[in-house]
Amino acid sequence: MDLLGALAYGELSAFDRLADDARMAPTLAGRAEMSAMATVELGHYEQLAARLTELGTSPEKAMEPFVAALDTYHSLTEPSTWLEGVVKAYVGDGMAADFYREVSEFVDESTRALIHDVLADGGRAEFAARELRAAVAQQPAAADRIALWARRLVGEAISQTQHVLADRDSLMLLMIEGTGGLSGVAGLITRITERHEERMTSLGLRS
Amino acid sequence: MDLLGALAYGELSAFDRLADDARMAPTLAGRAEMSAMATVELGHYEQLAARLTELGTSPEKAMEPFVAALDTYHSLTEPSTWLEGVVKAYVGDGMAADFYREVSEFVDESTRALIHDVLADGGRAEFAARELRAAVAQQPAAADRIALWARRLVGEAISQTQHVLADRDSLMLLMIEGTGGLSGVAGLITRITERHEERMTSLGLRS
Repeated sequence: MDLLGALAYGELSAFDRLADDARMAPTLAGRAEMSAMATVELGHYEQLAARLTELGTSPEKAMEPFVAALDTYHSLTEPSTWLEGVVKAYVGDGMAADFYREVSEFVDESTRALIHDVLADGGRAEFAARELRAAVAQQPAAADRIALWARRLVGEAISQTQHVLADRDSLMLLMIEGTGGLSGVAGLITRITERHEERMTSLGLRS
Repeated sequence: MDLLGALAYGELSAFDRLADDARMAPTLAGRAEMSAMATVELGHYEQLAARLTELGTSPEKAMEPFVAALDTYHSLTEPSTWLEGVVKAYVGDGMAADFYREVSEFVDESTRALIHDVLADGGRAEFAARELRAAVAQQPAAADRIALWARRLVGEAISQTQHVLADRDSLMLLMIEGTGGLSGVAGLITRITERHEERMTSLGLRS
């Protein structure tokens, strides 16, 4: 329930952030594209909310414990340029998705299937790579600034995840039991880090 | 083409505004509900953009002439409370929909069908009525303030529509020829005003 609640609020706030960041798009086409990403997240939110209702919980109640941490993450990583927004949508959300996918291994099959379903990437990799190439072609220094930005995203994501886990014993236990102890948790972190590095490499950035 | 372009940008900016106003929701459920409205608008935008592409025009180019007027309307009617946002989504967007529906009578059948399709109300009437009742129950004075707000929405909508028509001969001609002259235009305005009054009455507000 906690996992679905955290994920549901993650999707609702991703909708909100992407819709907000879409406004910085240099073209109407880019704005429409990021707005479309936002609507995909809201569709995911609706699937998760329906599942929570099915399980007998109100989505609002399930999300409540995670509002503060996610809002803090978003306010500490508010993009100030279009490119920062694009990279956040790919690198930040990609890392969050990896985390949820890992944890979903420890829950029942139908919940896992739902979680995998709502975490599909949906073409963000190409979108981010295209916008980044366009920006770097115009301003080669942009690549270094963006690599720094991506590191900040990762740092804040880790920090807020730690807060949530420290607060919610249920999630902490799920992770520790699921991975088979602390060394398992270390393995999970290593896998998430590796996938993050793959994303950075695919963008041509140093991680 | 101009009609579809104006409508497409109307939908894209409605997405943007609703997503923004959703943030003022007093509950996560209200926020999710208004966010869902925003995603419906983006779906409409995508249908219109697809139709424009089919007709051989880039959606961006078709929207461009209408960006300034619609952005001005939205910036002059930026809601400062959740309730203002809700009423704008129903009263303001409802009036715009009536206008587009009227003008769509003068274009070919498949374009008209598309326009009618993207302008369906989608449950906003009940949503607005419910939120308004809740607000008025808490604060009876809210009804008067909101009636004033609705009048402002109408005033700004008319003013921006006049700007657009003065700028775009194609739309002005479409309206004048479609309605059969200036007296026909007057009839169109009367019908739109009547429907606006019906909406206000349905909310229990004086128009």
